[in-house]
Amino acid sequence: MTAYRVEIRVVPRKGILDPQGQAVAGALHALGFDAVTDVRVGRHIVLETRAADPEGAGRAAREMCERLLANPVTEDFEIEQVVPAAT
Amino acid sequence: MTAYRVEIRVVPRKGILDPQGQAVAGALHALGFDAVTDVRVGRHIVLETRAADPEGAGRAAREMCERLLANPVTEDFEIEQVVPAAT
Repeated sequence: MTAYRVEIRVVPRKGILDPQGQAVAGALHALGFDAVTDVRVGRHIVLETRAADPEGAGRAAREMCERLLANPVTEDFEIEQVVPAAT
Repeated sequence: MTAYRVEIRVVPRKGILDPQGQAVAGALHALGFDAVTDVRVGRHIVLETRAADPEGAGRAAREMCERLLANPVTEDFEIEQVVPAAT
């Protein structure tokens, strides 16, 4: 088994209300950043996991997203990168 | 002025405790993902802002990070991408 580093991006699904993004936009406007027209806030997750190969690490990460890391109703996820972890 | 789309990544600074990452790791272990050895959770922010040029949009985004979007004590940020917003 090898240690792999997996980068995952979880974003609010398009068309779905993003209260956190709206709150950040409001705060930016309050600080004078009036040119900001939209803000979307998602999660960037970096995890390390042991797996037989990169495909196995990617499959496991996808299952982690489907079962825990991403809300299937309001969020989309993307496995950005699977690389051997720095040892 | 042109509308630009800026992607920002905010991550917990290395060496600093990441309670959210630890909580996610614990939950993944509870779901049977025992091969997971580390989890770091940061924010992925996509904002749209008007600016004279991409450099101006990037400078404004950097200032937004320094003043609001990233905690200067515990987090690092990176302006990943500045592109014209889809019209």
